[in-house]
Amino acid sequence: MTRKIRLGAFLPGSGQHIAAWRHPDQPADGATSFAFHAELAREAERGLFDAYFLADGLAVAFGGSTEGGNAKVAGFEPVTLFAALAPLTRNLGFIATASTTYEEPYNTARKFASLDLISDGRAGWNVVTTATEAAARNFNLDRQLPHADRYKRAAEHVEVVRKLWDSFEDDAFIRDKDSGVFYHPERVHHADHAGEHFKVKGPLNVSRSPQGHPVIVQAGQSDDGRGLAAATAEVIFTAHQRLDTAQEFYRDIKARARGLGRDPGHILIMPGVSPFVGRSEAEAREKYDRLTSLILEEDGIALIKGLTGGSLDLTGHDLDGPLPELEHTEGNQSRQALIRQIADENGFTIRQLYQWVASARGHFTVVGTPVQIADTLQEWFENEGADGFNILPPWLPAGLTDFVDLVIPELQRRGLFRTEYEGRTLRQNLGLPYPVNRHAAARAALQAAE
Amino acid sequence: MTRKIRLGAFLPGSGQHIAAWRHPDQPADGATSFAFHAELAREAERGLFDAYFLADGLAVAFGGSTEGGNAKVAGFEPVTLFAALAPLTRNLGFIATASTTYEEPYNTARKFASLDLISDGRAGWNVVTTATEAAARNFNLDRQLPHADRYKRAAEHVEVVRKLWDSFEDDAFIRDKDSGVFYHPERVHHADHAGEHFKVKGPLNVSRSPQGHPVIVQAGQSDDGRGLAAATAEVIFTAHQRLDTAQEFYRDIKARARGLGRDPGHILIMPGVSPFVGRSEAEAREKYDRLTSLILEEDGIALIKGLTGGSLDLTGHDLDGPLPELEHTEGNQSRQALIRQIADENGFTIRQLYQWVASARGHFTVVGTPVQIADTLQEWFENEGADGFNILPPWLPAGLTDFVDLVIPELQRRGLFRTEYEGRTLRQNLGLPYPVNRHAAARAALQAAE
Repeated sequence: MTRKIRLGAFLPGSGQHIAAWRHPDQPADGATSFAFHAELAREAERGLFDAYFLADGLAVAFGGSTEGGNAKVAGFEPVTLFAALAPLTRNLGFIATASTTYEEPYNTARKFASLDLISDGRAGWNVVTTATEAAARNFNLDRQLPHADRYKRAAEHVEVVRKLWDSFEDDAFIRDKDSGVFYHPERVHHADHAGEHFKVKGPLNVSRSPQGHPVIVQAGQSDDGRGLAAATAEVIFTAHQRLDTAQEFYRDIKARARGLGRDPGHILIMPGVSPFVGRSEAEAREKYDRLTSLILEEDGIALIKGLTGGSLDLTGHDLDGPLPELEHTEGNQSRQALIRQIADENGFTIRQLYQWVASARGHFTVVGTPVQIADTLQEWFENEGADGFNILPPWLPAGLTDFVDLVIPELQRRGLFRTEYEGRTLRQNLGLPYPVNRHAAARAALQAAE
Repeated sequence: MTRKIRLGAFLPGSGQHIAAWRHPDQPADGATSFAFHAELAREAERGLFDAYFLADGLAVAFGGSTEGGNAKVAGFEPVTLFAALAPLTRNLGFIATASTTYEEPYNTARKFASLDLISDGRAGWNVVTTATEAAARNFNLDRQLPHADRYKRAAEHVEVVRKLWDSFEDDAFIRDKDSGVFYHPERVHHADHAGEHFKVKGPLNVSRSPQGHPVIVQAGQSDDGRGLAAATAEVIFTAHQRLDTAQEFYRDIKARARGLGRDPGHILIMPGVSPFVGRSEAEAREKYDRLTSLILEEDGIALIKGLTGGSLDLTGHDLDGPLPELEHTEGNQSRQALIRQIADENGFTIRQLYQWVASARGHFTVVGTPVQIADTLQEWFENEGADGFNILPPWLPAGLTDFVDLVIPELQRRGLFRTEYEGRTLRQNLGLPYPVNRHAAARAALQAAE
C-alpha cells in the first residue's frame, strides 16, 4: 500500500482565527451551536478526513484584557460533543482532548471506551497535561503542578487507562442463554495497578471496544512531552513554521520510538496547517488580509497571554515595539519558546506577532492556490517532515469547504490522499495496528512455551 | 393545569430483571449495544415518557460468585451514551447518574451543561455518592469514605456545580460583529468557591444551557440522603414495596422541603415500579414466572450482595432457610434495611427473597392487567404516595412495549397522563420552574432597592 497523507480537521465551532467570528460567513454562535458542529462533521466526512479533532482547556481562556472579544470563552466538553456527532456520521474519527492532571484514569477509560462503542470504533484520545494556572484553580489548587510532575502523572495515567481497556478480552462475552453463562470469568481481568499517582483495582465496567484501545494522540513538544509521545502516542499533533524544524522533530520522535522498540511507522506525525485557499494567489491573500483586519488590539494581546499559559502579558507594552523577555513559569514552555522563535525569526513587532499568530495560534499558515498548498504539503510529506496534517481552517465553514473542494482533489490527483475510506475504524483508516489484549498475549506466550 | 403523573423509564440495555438476558425476546448483548439503546429511547419517546433514566456504579458489579452470569458486568458511561441518543430523539429527557465522590465538580458541571446544550434542554443529573467498596478501589482508596462524609461532600459538590452553571447570565453573549464585543464581561462570573472539600475559581467554560440548570435528581433514602434531597433535588427516585411506606417518605420529604422554604410542588417524588403487564392476570403471572424460572442460584446470591454494597454475602447459607443477621458496614445502608424489611414482612427464605428482589432489585413489582396496574399507580398518585413513577421494565424491549401499548393508554383514558409533550425541555415537561441566574437575581434585587 502506498503511503498516504493523513488528515485531521481541527474544528472548534468558533473557527481557528481569533477574529473568525467577526467574519460575515462565520456563524457568531458557532462555538456553542450543536447544529453547527454537526454541519462541520458532515463537511469533514465529505472531505474524507481521518478525524475531527477538538482541543480542550478546562478553564475559560480569558487572556489579559479581552473586554469580551473572545469567541472561545465557552464551548462543549469534547467527548460529550463527539458522542452526539457519532450517530450523524459513518466514517469520520473523533479525537477528543482529555486531561491526565484533572481527571481520574477510571473515568477517562470509561468515557473513551464508551465513545468507541457508540461510534463503532472511531474514537481517539488526545492526552494533555493541561498547562494553565486557570485550570489548576478550577481543581482545588492555587498553582499548577510542576511541568515534570505533570508528565510523570500523565505517563502513569495513560498506563492505567490502557490496563483498564484490557479488562475484557476480545472473546470474554459468551452470552449463552441456555447455560446462563454471560461471560468467561477468566477472560475478565483486574488492572491491579498501584503506582506513585494512582491505585486502581479494576476491571473497567465498559466492555472492550471495537478498536481495542481508542487511538492515543499527543502534542507534547518539550523534552518530557517528546519522551511521553515516543513511548505511548500513535498520532502526534505538532506545531512548526518551517520544514527544517518539522524534520528535526520528526526524526527525533521516530528515533526515540525506534530506541524504545516501537515501529516508527506506527507513530504518525501531523503538524498543524492553517490554509487560506484561493483560486488565485491574490484571492488567497485577500482572504488572509480580510481576517487580519478584524483583529482588535486587546484581543491580540489576550491571545499571546492565553497561548503562553498566562505567563506573557503584554498589556501596556508598545505594540509597535519588540517582544520583551519572557520569565520562566510553569506554563506551557514549548509554546513560550515557539512564540519567541516566531518573533525573532521574522523580526516581528508585538502587533505583527499577534497578527501572524492570530491566524493559526502558533501553527503554520499557508496562503495560496490549491497547487501551491498541495506542493507545500507534498514537500513536507515526502521529506520526513510529516505523515499527515491537522488542518486548522481559519474560519468556518468556508475555510473548511475551500480545503475540501479545492485542495483535497489536488492531493487525490497526485495520489497522495484517499478517494474513499479504507476501513471502518479510525485505527484502520490511519493504518495503525489493533492492540492485542495483554492478557490474551500473555496466555498465548505461555501456551507456546508449554 | 391538572396534576399529571410523571414517568421515567429505567432502561439499562440488559433489562431490569436479573435473568432478563436469558429471555428469548431480550437481546443478550443489549447492555453493550448502542443500536439497542437507540431503539429503547425511541420506544420511550413513543410512550411520551418524561425521561430515560440510567443508573451508574463506577465498578463492575461482580457480586460474590456469579460465575459469569451477570449481564450488567459492562455498559456505557451514561452521559456519553445520552449525548449520542439526544440527536436521535426530540422530546425525551435524559437523566444520567454521576458521582459526587469520584468526580470533580468542574467536570460534572461541564458534561451536564454540554448534554443540555446538545439535547436542547433535556438533561438531568442523578446525584449519587457511589456506595460500594469496589468503586473506592477504582479511585485510589482502599475503603470508601464514611457515609456522612460522602453526603457532606455531595452537598458541597452540588453547590459548586450550581454556581458554575450560573457562570454566564442568560444575556451574557452579545456577539456583535461590528464592535467586536462577543460577550458582556460583567455578565460572566467566577464561582469563587472555597469550601471544605472543593476550591473552584470558575467560570465554567460552557455557556448557560437551555434549562439554566439541568434537572437535579436524587435517590437518597437514609436520613442524610433525605436531607440532601429535600434541600437540592427536583426529582426523587425512591424504592417502596407498600403505599404506607411510600406515603411516609413522600410526606417527610415534602415537609422537609417546606421547612427549608422550598415549594414542595417543585420536588417530584417518583417511586420505582417494575410492571409485568398481561391482557389477563394469568398472562401477567406467566410472564413473571417465566423470568423467575431463569434465575440461577449463584446469580441470586450475587444480586443480594451487590444490592447491599457488597456487605451481605450469603454464599454457603441454606437457600431455603431465613436471612441471617446483617452486620453494619459503610455500604448502602438504606438498601440493607429494605432487603431486611422485604424478607421479614413476607417471611421469605433466601431463595424466595432473591426471586422477589430479582425482578426489580428492591423496587415495587406489579403483576396484572393494564386496569389493575393503572389502579395501583392512580392510588399512589392520588394519596400522597407519588408524583409519578420510574418504570423499570423487567426485560426489554417487550416489557417496555407492553407498558407503552397497554398501560399508557389506560392512564391517558383516566386523564392521568399526557397525550402529547407539553414543552420543549425536560424541566417544562416536568412542570419545574426555570432557575433564575443568581447574579441576575442579585442585580435585580439591588436595582429594586435603589
